[in-house]
Formats: sequence, structure tokens, C-alpha cells
Amino acid sequence: MPSVEIVAVGTELLLGQLVDTNTPFIASELARAGIDVRATQSVGDNRERIAATVRTSLARAQGVLMTGGLGPTIDDLTREAVCDALEVGTELYEPALRQMEAIFARFGRPMRANNRKQAELPAGCRPLDNPRGTAPGFIAFASDERFVACMPGVPREMKPMLREQVVPFLRERFGARETIVTRVIHTIGLGESEIDHRIADLFGSCENPKIALLAHDFRADVKIMAKASTADEADAMIAPLQTEIVRRLEDGVFGYDADTPASAILRLMRSQQRRLAIAESCTGGRIAAALTSVPGSSQSFAGAVVAYDNAVKISQLGVDAGTLERNGAVSDEVAREMARGARARLGADVALATTGIAGPDGGTAEKPVGLVLFALDDGTENSRVWNFSLEGDRETITQRATVIALNLLWRYAKGQAP
Amino acid sequence: MPSVEIVAVGTELLLGQLVDTNTPFIASELARAGIDVRATQSVGDNRERIAATVRTSLARAQGVLMTGGLGPTIDDLTREAVCDALEVGTELYEPALRQMEAIFARFGRPMRANNRKQAELPAGCRPLDNPRGTAPGFIAFASDERFVACMPGVPREMKPMLREQVVPFLRERFGARETIVTRVIHTIGLGESEIDHRIADLFGSCENPKIALLAHDFRADVKIMAKASTADEADAMIAPLQTEIVRRLEDGVFGYDADTPASAILRLMRSQQRRLAIAESCTGGRIAAALTSVPGSSQSFAGAVVAYDNAVKISQLGVDAGTLERNGAVSDEVAREMARGARARLGADVALATTGIAGPDGGTAEKPVGLVLFALDDGTENSRVWNFSLEGDRETITQRATVIALNLLWRYAKGQAP
Repeated sequence: MPSVEIVAVGTELLLGQLVDTNTPFIASELARAGIDVRATQSVGDNRERIAATVRTSLARAQGVLMTGGLGPTIDDLTREAVCDALEVGTELYEPALRQMEAIFARFGRPMRANNRKQAELPAGCRPLDNPRGTAPGFIAFASDERFVACMPGVPREMKPMLREQVVPFLRERFGARETIVTRVIHTIGLGESEIDHRIADLFGSCENPKIALLAHDFRADVKIMAKASTADEADAMIAPLQTEIVRRLEDGVFGYDADTPASAILRLMRSQQRRLAIAESCTGGRIAAALTSVPGSSQSFAGAVVAYDNAVKISQLGVDAGTLERNGAVSDEVAREMARGARARLGADVALATTGIAGPDGGTAEKPVGLVLFALDDGTENSRVWNFSLEGDRETITQRATVIALNLLWRYAKGQAP
Repeated sequence: MPSVEIVAVGTELLLGQLVDTNTPFIASELARAGIDVRATQSVGDNRERIAATVRTSLARAQGVLMTGGLGPTIDDLTREAVCDALEVGTELYEPALRQMEAIFARFGRPMRANNRKQAELPAGCRPLDNPRGTAPGFIAFASDERFVACMPGVPREMKPMLREQVVPFLRERFGARETIVTRVIHTIGLGESEIDHRIADLFGSCENPKIALLAHDFRADVKIMAKASTADEADAMIAPLQTEIVRRLEDGVFGYDADTPASAILRLMRSQQRRLAIAESCTGGRIAAALTSVPGSSQSFAGAVVAYDNAVKISQLGVDAGTLERNGAVSDEVAREMARGARARLGADVALATTGIAGPDGGTAEKPVGLVLFALDDGTENSRVWNFSLEGDRETITQRATVIALNLLWRYAKGQAP
């Protein structure tokens, strides 16, 4: 079975200064197309090592997909290294040069001499258009027809080039392949070991479809992957397993595939014709950002007040100054008044409020860093306050608090007592 | 110079279902310790391929650091594959078994038969404690003393094992190493080719210290890396280059190392004793989230209103209903009134407002998806509106709009006409 390898170029990857998201993106697109990825690698901005990596990969796989190192600077060495590995020279590709000139003209910026080298591609290659940036990509060939496809490292340039030019090339070259379909079942509020306990017997049952469990903080995904010659066939293999898993995890399943906790909450709110508002202190806008990521969120999301300052809690949410003074900003009473105020002032049916101590400063013995309170108000006796003690640094605490807020909102909207 | 390679094990990595954050974490810890990473790889849960990868890496580097594949399931094959690669058998390590039993007892969970295999480690290895999980790690040795250090894939188990056991082992084995110091100069609002044009001559000038340029949307980082025997020495090598680069890019440099656009804005605001407020429509809370990521942000950030709904724009920001009706929510007039309202109502000195069409729906011929307006109000004639046409999907547009907003705020706070 033909396979490819993926190589990411950049010294910053070897220094841990950048998390490589290109490789997983390429890998998942290839999985959808039924193309086997044998291994992935990253290598620094070093001409000899890049060339050696290309040679090693080409000895194991029919093709290599590379990202990065196509820019105009002296550190951009992928073109030269690929020529070395394939033992070919470079040629100036006039159409690529013309296109680059047109892009610079459109951006109203002068094209400099160093950009010209971006149009000098391996002889005999197939250039790849890059309408979103200046560096053209290319597919270069070894004498035995093995190939190296080079794409820019900037994700918004790489992604359309991969989808529109490289994947079609691979499909044609490798013929019709099996397809891999993945169904993701998203859960929230169930522990990893709890999920494992409920579905462990299904894990070992078969290789195709295959089940995997991926845990995040307070969230976990169960993935079912099936290989078949058509997507319909793969779907049919997945369906019974999916039904069984959802039956066992029902109290935690909020959605599938592209669903997010926010999209699940807004779907429930919309079906109940209710509107949601948020009052955020320690989460600082993250709950609102999650909700507004969902297309069409304005239908059921009224808005939010990020009330970092006590004066804003008073002026925008109607929190009582006396309540603040008596109890402090991180208190059940203030959380409750923030939620009540957000609901009333933003014209919503339901509101959730957060207040807590994200750190690194501001903690006390009584109210340590990591203490976060959540209040929900819908104008009935269902209104409640919860408190959590979260561990981690400032970023981790606010991130966890955001997920917990979404869990509470989802369970509330579903009619489960959170 | 001795070097290591990093290998991440897991088929999910080759299917793009998981972004590997272990490898960059390990790489950055090794950079701090002055240990050279030659390349990184990922490989699937396949015994032969893992063994072949270990052999390839050991032929190029003195050591291999691996993550993943140490669990109890049938898919966890790292132990066996490393034994194959090094041509050694396994041994039951009693202390590792005892420790696992103790951990299961502490978690109150029964230890199953398949967990036992986790204590069967390569003969002659040095076991690594894993107090946070069940899978012990180990460092196994080839006959020529090259080594393979295997750690679990779960980040919270891997990280302390790396820091407390593997890095000290590497330091001892490789002797006192050179240290690598990195200085990051952060810029905003300058294009990549503009930066390259201004500093290109410095790039080629030397290998140590070395300069690299890393571009994001509307942001770019220039990194200076120096290798020396002490951090002070490396700092001294960096200093003159840093001064020269900052001189050339001064209009775009907002900070260094851990600085963010938000921290730079808040630092300026604090020194000017001014307070900032935000009114967000299409950015949906992201500007507030960026600002509140900064510890101590409450000193100069009053808060934000996420006014997704027109009714909220009216009630919380005092936008005039007639203005909305005549001009639509995405208009200069509404942007201006949102900023003015946020400033007045949140008790701030300066406010920025965003309103735009993030898509995928809601665009018209006159106001297409991607149109985003920014208004800044400080109660003087400096108050202004900007409009941008952004490309991309919903997530990209809101992300770019957030960076542009931070760029405008930073330039305003610095006293540059943005």
C-alpha cells in the first residue's frame, strides 16, 4: 500500500518555540482521503539535514509532504535542500514570478529582490499556486517518480494548497483508496476513568471499527474510526457501536464531530426559545468568546458583561455596593447578584456569572487562588451557586473555569440537575 | 556535539486526531538545558515501525526521548519495540510493580492483569518513577551506551518525569553543556517582507547568535538565539544585536519574550494612569479575554460589554436606536457610539469598539462578510474609526480582528497615529 511521510521544517520546532499544527492538519486530510501516513518528522533550518531527511523519507515512502522553509529569507532552505536530495537544479518559473508580482501589486507593496528566489523551483517540478501568499509551492520528482510536495508553513496558505492541489494529485497518483471515517462522540463532566469503566469492554472488541478515548480537562472524546471502500460503508460500520456508546454515556454526551459545548448549549436554548446572557469576572470574556464562535449565536445569545472591576459590577450588573463590601467580590452573594443583573439588564431568560481568583496574586487563606464561583439565574428557584477549587496557573484556572461554566450551562439547558 | 532525537508514538498522531504538544515541551526543556535536538518524529502503534524508528534515530544521535505507548493495552507497544531495537529481553521490575500496586491502592481501583506488563521493562534499564500515573518510564541502553528514554504520553505524567529524572540524567551524561538563550522581539502591524527588508543584512551575518523571523497574522517575532557556556555570556552576545534590530523595527516593537500585545497595552495604560474599556460585537469577548490573560490587568482594564444583540448595544452601551436603524449595526456611526458608550458607562478613559460581519451568513454586497469596523474614543478629537476587509472563515476573521484591535490600541497608547 503506497504511503507518504510528512516533514515540517523549522528550527523553532526543535527548540519547542512553536507547536506544529500543520502536521496534524495534513494527516487528518490524508486520512479522509484514505492515504496512509507512515511517519512524521520535523527538522531544523539546515540544508544538509533537510536533504538527508527527504532522502530517508523517500526511501520508506512513495511521497513526502513538506511544510515551511519556502519564504524569501536566508533561513528558508527547503527549495535548495529538496534539489540536493533529488539531485536536480533550479529553474526560474516565469508564471510563478508573474503571480508573485501580481500579489505584491494587489497588496500595494514593493516586491524585493529576495522574493525572486521564491520563483526558482526544482527543475521539472509542478508548481503549486499560492493565491494567499507570496511563496509558491511545488511537487518535485525523483528519477524513480517518487515525489516531494512542498507547501508554505503559514497555515492559511498551506491549507487551501493542500486541499485544492496536493490531495487531488495524491488521489490521482495512488488511485482510488480506502477511506477512513471518524465519528467523534463528545462528552463533558464525566471522568476519564468513569468513561473507561463504562465502555472498556468495547475497546478490545475489534480493530475495524476501532475506538479511542481522548481526555481533556472535564471533557473527553470517544472516537470511532472505520476503514471501508466508501464513506457509506464506513458509516454503517460505525452506527451500531455509536448507538451503544451513547447509550452508556448518555448523561455526558453533548454532541458529535464539529459540535462544541457552546453549540450544544445554544441549540438547546434556541429550541426552548430562550436567550442567554453571561457575566464574567475571572473568565474575562472566554465564555462569551466560546459562545460567539458558533455561527448564528446571536439568535440565542444576548451578550455578556466582563465585569473585572467592582465599579463595573455595580454600574453594569446592578450588584449592590454593600453586598460587595460585606462579602468581597468572590462570594456566593456577589455571584448571585451578577447573574441576576446580567439576566435583567441584557434582557435574557437565563444568565450565568463567574467570579473567582485566577492568580497569581489575590489569594488569601480563606479564599485561595483557584477558588471560582458560578451562579445561574433564571428567575426561578432553580437559580443556584456552585463553587470549585481549581489547580494550575492563571491560564489553566481560567480555561478550566470556562469549561466548567459550559458544563453547568449545558446540564441546566438539558434539564439535568448539574 | 552530542544530540538527541524526540519520538512521539501513537497512531492518532498520524491520523491528525491529536496535536502533539509533548514534543515542543520536551524540546524547549532541552534547549534550556543546552541539549541539542537533531530532529523529531512521530510513528504509529506498530511494533516494527517503532523499532525501525528507534534504530534510525540512534544511528544519528546519542539518545532518543520517546513519549507514549507505555499503557496497559494491546496498542501500547513501545516497551516491546525498544527491546527489539536494542536486542534485549524484558525483565519484571519488582519495585516498579510494587509502586504500581501502591498507586492503584491509593486511587482505590483494582489493578488488572494487563497492568502487570507495565512493570516488564527492558533488561538492564534504569526505571523511572511515575508518581502521577501507573506506567513507569525507563532509560534503556544499547551495547554502545547509546540510550532510549521512554516516558508516558500523558502530559501531566511526562512533564515531571522529564524535568526531575530525564533532564538530570542527560546533564550528567553529556557533561556541562552550553546553554541556549533565546530573546524574542515581538512586533505588531509590520509585514513579514517589510521586516525582512529592514534586517535582512543581519540574518546572514552570523550563526551564533542566530536570528530567525516567525510571522503570524499582523504579528511577527524576531528571535535571537545565542549559545554560550553561561546565560550571562549568551545575554552579552545577544545585547548589541537586539539593540540594532529594535532600532530598525522600532515603530512595531511592542515587547520581549513573555510580553503580549495585551500586556504591552496595559503597561502603557498603567504608566499613564488611564483605564481601558472594550465594547465587542463581532470579536465576541476575545479582546477582553486577551487583556484579562495578563496578571494584574484589573488595575487598568475596567471591563467589557459583549454586545452581540442590538438591544444590548442600546441598553448597555447607550447606542441610539435611530442610529442603528438608519445605519445598521455595522456602521461607522454605531461603532463610534459603542466606543463612546463603553467609555462613559464603564468609567474608563479610553474605549475601543468592534462591530463587523464574521460570517458565514449576514453579508451583503455593500457590507460583505469580513468587513470589520473599529472605533476608539477617548473623549477628544483623537477619537477615530477604522475599517478593514478581512479574509477567511468565521474563526479567522474574529481572530484577525482581535489582533488588529490590539494593534490599534497599542499604537494609540504609545502615542503613534495608528
